[in-house]
Amino acid sequence: MASLGDIGVSALINIVTAFAFLLAFALLRIQPINDRVYFPKWYISGARSSPRHTGNFVGKFVNLNFKTYLTFLNWMPQALRMKEPEIIDHAGLDSAAFLRIYVLGLKIFGPAAIVAFLVLIPVNVSGGMLFFLSHELVISDIDKLSISNVRPKSPKFFAHISVMYLFTFWACYMLYKEYDAVASMRLDFLASKSRRAEQFTVLVKNVPHVDGRSLSDTVEYFFKKNHSTHYLCHQAVYNANKFARVVKKRQKLQNYLDYNELKFERSPHKRPTKKTGFLGLWGKKVDSIEYYQQQIKELDEKLMVERERILKDPKCIMPAAFVSFNSRWGATVCAQTQQSKNPILWLTDWAPEPRDVYWKNLAIPFVSLSIRKLVISLAVFALVFFYIIPIAFVQSLANLDGLERVVPFLRPVIELGFIKSFLQGFLPGLALKIFLWLLPGILMTMSKIEGHVAFSVLERETAGKYYFFMLVNVFLGSIATGTAFEQLNSFLHQSTTEIPRTIGVSIPMKATFFITYIMVDGWAGMAGEILRLKPLIMFHLKNMLIVKTKRDREKAMNPKSIDFPETIPSLQLYFLMGAVYAVVTPILLPFILIFFAFAYFVYRHQVINVYNQRYESAAAFWPHVHTRIIANLLISQFLLMGLLSTKKAANSTPLLAVLPVLTLTFHKYCKNRFEPAFRKYPLEATVEKDTQEEVSSPGIDIKSFVSEAYLHPVLRSFEEVELVELRVEDNRARIPSQPTIEPVSGLDSPKMQQHLQVVVQQHKSVYTSVHQSHNT
Amino acid sequence: MASLGDIGVSALINIVTAFAFLLAFALLRIQPINDRVYFPKWYISGARSSPRHTGNFVGKFVNLNFKTYLTFLNWMPQALRMKEPEIIDHAGLDSAAFLRIYVLGLKIFGPAAIVAFLVLIPVNVSGGMLFFLSHELVISDIDKLSISNVRPKSPKFFAHISVMYLFTFWACYMLYKEYDAVASMRLDFLASKSRRAEQFTVLVKNVPHVDGRSLSDTVEYFFKKNHSTHYLCHQAVYNANKFARVVKKRQKLQNYLDYNELKFERSPHKRPTKKTGFLGLWGKKVDSIEYYQQQIKELDEKLMVERERILKDPKCIMPAAFVSFNSRWGATVCAQTQQSKNPILWLTDWAPEPRDVYWKNLAIPFVSLSIRKLVISLAVFALVFFYIIPIAFVQSLANLDGLERVVPFLRPVIELGFIKSFLQGFLPGLALKIFLWLLPGILMTMSKIEGHVAFSVLERETAGKYYFFMLVNVFLGSIATGTAFEQLNSFLHQSTTEIPRTIGVSIPMKATFFITYIMVDGWAGMAGEILRLKPLIMFHLKNMLIVKTKRDREKAMNPKSIDFPETIPSLQLYFLMGAVYAVVTPILLPFILIFFAFAYFVYRHQVINVYNQRYESAAAFWPHVHTRIIANLLISQFLLMGLLSTKKAANSTPLLAVLPVLTLTFHKYCKNRFEPAFRKYPLEATVEKDTQEEVSSPGIDIKSFVSEAYLHPVLRSFEEVELVELRVEDNRARIPSQPTIEPVSGLDSPKMQQHLQVVVQQHKSVYTSVHQSHNT
Repeated sequence: MASLGDIGVSALINIVTAFAFLLAFALLRIQPINDRVYFPKWYISGARSSPRHTGNFVGKFVNLNFKTYLTFLNWMPQALRMKEPEIIDHAGLDSAAFLRIYVLGLKIFGPAAIVAFLVLIPVNVSGGMLFFLSHELVISDIDKLSISNVRPKSPKFFAHISVMYLFTFWACYMLYKEYDAVASMRLDFLASKSRRAEQFTVLVKNVPHVDGRSLSDTVEYFFKKNHSTHYLCHQAVYNANKFARVVKKRQKLQNYLDYNELKFERSPHKRPTKKTGFLGLWGKKVDSIEYYQQQIKELDEKLMVERERILKDPKCIMPAAFVSFNSRWGATVCAQTQQSKNPILWLTDWAPEPRDVYWKNLAIPFVSLSIRKLVISLAVFALVFFYIIPIAFVQSLANLDGLERVVPFLRPVIELGFIKSFLQGFLPGLALKIFLWLLPGILMTMSKIEGHVAFSVLERETAGKYYFFMLVNVFLGSIATGTAFEQLNSFLHQSTTEIPRTIGVSIPMKATFFITYIMVDGWAGMAGEILRLKPLIMFHLKNMLIVKTKRDREKAMNPKSIDFPETIPSLQLYFLMGAVYAVVTPILLPFILIFFAFAYFVYRHQVINVYNQRYESAAAFWPHVHTRIIANLLISQFLLMGLLSTKKAANSTPLLAVLPVLTLTFHKYCKNRFEPAFRKYPLEATVEKDTQEEVSSPGIDIKSFVSEAYLHPVLRSFEEVELVELRVEDNRARIPSQPTIEPVSGLDSPKMQQHLQVVVQQHKSVYTSVHQSHNT
Repeated sequence: MASLGDIGVSALINIVTAFAFLLAFALLRIQPINDRVYFPKWYISGARSSPRHTGNFVGKFVNLNFKTYLTFLNWMPQALRMKEPEIIDHAGLDSAAFLRIYVLGLKIFGPAAIVAFLVLIPVNVSGGMLFFLSHELVISDIDKLSISNVRPKSPKFFAHISVMYLFTFWACYMLYKEYDAVASMRLDFLASKSRRAEQFTVLVKNVPHVDGRSLSDTVEYFFKKNHSTHYLCHQAVYNANKFARVVKKRQKLQNYLDYNELKFERSPHKRPTKKTGFLGLWGKKVDSIEYYQQQIKELDEKLMVERERILKDPKCIMPAAFVSFNSRWGATVCAQTQQSKNPILWLTDWAPEPRDVYWKNLAIPFVSLSIRKLVISLAVFALVFFYIIPIAFVQSLANLDGLERVVPFLRPVIELGFIKSFLQGFLPGLALKIFLWLLPGILMTMSKIEGHVAFSVLERETAGKYYFFMLVNVFLGSIATGTAFEQLNSFLHQSTTEIPRTIGVSIPMKATFFITYIMVDGWAGMAGEILRLKPLIMFHLKNMLIVKTKRDREKAMNPKSIDFPETIPSLQLYFLMGAVYAVVTPILLPFILIFFAFAYFVYRHQVINVYNQRYESAAAFWPHVHTRIIANLLISQFLLMGLLSTKKAANSTPLLAVLPVLTLTFHKYCKNRFEPAFRKYPLEATVEKDTQEEVSSPGIDIKSFVSEAYLHPVLRSFEEVELVELRVEDNRARIPSQPTIEPVSGLDSPKMQQHLQVVVQQHKSVYTSVHQSHNT
């Protein structure tokens, strides 16, 4: 058991680390050379196109304006200056709602900390050998401040129970207010959004196969019949995975070509050459530009054939479609009603944003989905409870002896004293570390196998799995001894009331561990987050090694989205710690509060300056956040019940047993009250928006607007490719894409003809814009 | 432990009892005097208006045609003669689906019994001291045939596990087929239904109050805006509970008046008189006809005032309304989408059939509903686990001493020897028996407090609660020792794996108890059901004592509906017994099979000849039936796991643990696959029906058809009353109800005017029909 002094030392170390990170960040961010690492969001939004610098050559890379070094901590007030509505405009509602989770933590635990300090710490301190806050306190055990210091059977436990009640009510009140606020923010956000394809479009899955009729006709017939006045058009979904691979290869070649053309432009006296062998290291020497042009031409022919095959082959049309309606009302009705008599056919739901669609999962039939869900649930369960078994097995293999057997030529190196001791201390944990590093990816793959159709849903599901893993292996695993599956076994053989008791009794003893965890993972971790050491190094490495064209540099700069699947579950672990220790060891709360405040600053800065969200789900993750905080409250209640029952305050159990019931009821009420705002779209809002639009822009052509949106991205990128190609071979550009778009057999309905016309128009418009940019 | 011989004796007794009941039934049913007790359904459907009899006066009461006595068991083939579609026509889909539950029982347990007898009984028998079926078997213990006879750690348990797998798969396959069949029957039934008001009508609850606008206007405005092309009209809901009481009183007086007028008609020389005092026993003697006419007139004036108050007072309009649409499509869309941005306002759902509406619960706000649900769940939990406490308390009071203290004048009687012993044997159980008799009523009241808006839902919810009670107190209570709350306590202190073991180990020992239970409650109980002793006695008593008019006789004859809340849960207990004992003691299965077959005969007869359903929910209870049978399967699997683990076949646990996972997955799949057919209405079907109707009867006036349906039944009955009054005072009949229908302040929109016109028209049409019948 660590004393307050030990904690103080640990805190000092972590604070110093965090400050070192912050200092490094403050120095690095004002160097122009790092501008694209620390402010990529502004480049993407177009507000910045090159780093601000002071003129001369050195100033291009290093900040020579020494005044800015004096104000190096000014990112904090800067991060706070932007108001929430501006953040929503700038970075989207997802980011704004994400920041609110940290504020929610402050709101819940701030007052809780004050009450706990005023009421519980005096009660705890007076319970043991110590009378009131005395001088000795600083050097005494931290347990003196916790519930451990209260004697068994003491009536003082009623103070703890009362505070638990107060805390639960306060947390629920805050959760309610926050849910309310986020729900209305979401509705406002959706209402204020400009006209978007997903507002008019519904994704229909499990389209049945009708003999002698093409899938497209089936969809057309069904929706014309059942949504006669609202149906507009639809977009079939093609199975274009193979095609996508070829397109990717072509893009790579195009990139090489651009690079070589650029090179040639800069030094026109020397045509660039390359060797055709492996990695360009050996083989025949050829003219690079000609070589790549030849390669691209070959690929294009391949693509043409493949594309024709996709459009012609009915096997490539998947039993799903994006169906568009002529009003938001029509789309809402279709998305929220049952279409077919067979409830597993014609499943409709809102179409995700076009950039949010996970195309590979669109065509999974219903039965397969059920089985996948079962298999993945079992796999997640196994992963959470038994992951340690294969790791231990790998560890036993990957020791020094095993290593020497596999790579015998390294033996002399391994046998060196300091390397040996390093490896011995390092290798056993390596498998575990690699596993933990791979874990989010594994969970994401599992979610993909489960068959969700949007990246936003995939990330939410991954977050759920990750939370479960953290809860069992980090939180419960730290408290109880032994591995998770050993615990599982012992729990199965313990009574229902025994389980919380077993865990509850060791909770106060683990307080110091969690305080250290908060400082290392939370404080120093957040400072690491703002420093962006990995992206910084990666950006400069890429810039030196592989960046050849402007497109490459943009790719290297790409800041990606906030990592919701990892960040949100980790964050919720802090809620859990706070809820559990609020009553047991209140001294932990200030550490959590500092984490929440600091993380809020950091992420506010990151959201404004760095991250660029891949999709916008309009805070669709909030119900999950809310549910998991409620789950945390329930866990804390059960653990307190267990803890108190070991303190022989047995008659407190019925008193505390009321709390979970109340909490669950509150959750159920919130679910009914707010969750529909995140899952459905009220007709009232659609009518308002439809009417508004009719007034503001009467007679708009929704069809042309909608029909372009849900083209398969590969077919779309193929068009880009094609048009780039058109730019190269100008004589073919006059009749863009005509050879490729032949009326597909069976699709010769007037509807389809219209659709094809639209595609042709699109080709033309894209071509025109590319052409213009080429000419200017 | 009873031997097979004991079981045989018990079976004999019960078979004799059942046959005695059947004989009594066969004799009583062919007496004309009992015709209205045993064939009321035919009277209600209009196929019969008076008993068939053989002419003379005695033949009116007693069957003198002795030929019919010879064929007294012919009700069985008669009951089977009617085909299922005819039953649906005759008694509705609810009854037909109810009968299918019994057939499902036969389908599941028939093959299961064959397999168990062929495989398990030989295995069990060969396990112990006995070799194969020998002569001694008949007199030996019944346990020799059960799993108890297999030695611990025997590999033979794999036979039991395999049969459990087989049984589960077979049961799931049958459940799937049945769910499929019932779902398509429901869709066909709904599709074949003629035009009904509920197809066009949606019940909207939690209408918000808008300042300065009447509720009716609010509803009108909201739906005209959000369902502009589909909205037709709406019917406000009035709080008319007080009014209903007065109307009831008036009906009683009207009945007396009719009776006296009839009396006077039959003996015109003597005007009937009555005394005004208590029960007509003393007081002033008056002319009955004049007296009642006077009383009715007074009441009518009171009703008039009250009615005006209801229509004028905005406090009497409840925040709910029945909104009708001009097509089924429009109504379906409204019922299945979210209307308002605030998801707890404007809650829409299908309107129940007019006769199914439970009017009192229409206006409960959402928050109140949540709280009611919580309170009732807690109450049900307390009732199930702690009901024995107050009963024991009452029992301790209601012993002989207590009785003598309360009614001292009865002491001499109580002290008589045989009466004393009778009371001593009887009184202690009396409180429990009264409680069990009251239980369905208590549970129904609880469901009513929960706030459901239709009788069908109320009955389904009551059935769920009753099943829970039976499961804990009858099934588990019989197996484990001690009262339910003692068990609850011990379970809380036992490990999760210990619970099924504790119960599992005593299962084989209780087989004889359940066999007896099946014979007493099942076999004899069914024979009692068909005998209808209580309705028979009540009908004749009522006929003798209180039946005065034709209306009274019809009331006395009223057979009511099948008692779903009691029958279905009891029935499901047999599924549970079957599932649990199929593997453990297969000898129990034939008893259950006989019950299912016999009950099927009996209820087929009753459905055809007796019961008259109050509402038609189109088999909406089936998902509950399915879910509970699945729950029974899960319980049986866990109990078998527990039982086998006591048999030290410990390595069987993982093998069996797969079964619940598979069963739950199957359940989830079925829920997705079929439940929407019971909760939602597919747009495809509405379009078909709308189109069909447009072809068959173009240009029908849905508005006039719909607007009459959802008038509050009391206001409707008031109109009847009023028109009867008009008949009496002819001069006022020319301007029917004009004085009462004044435009209510604030309701003077054109829509409301239309609505009022409809009401006036309705008055006129009802008046016309009554007037015509009066003239002819």
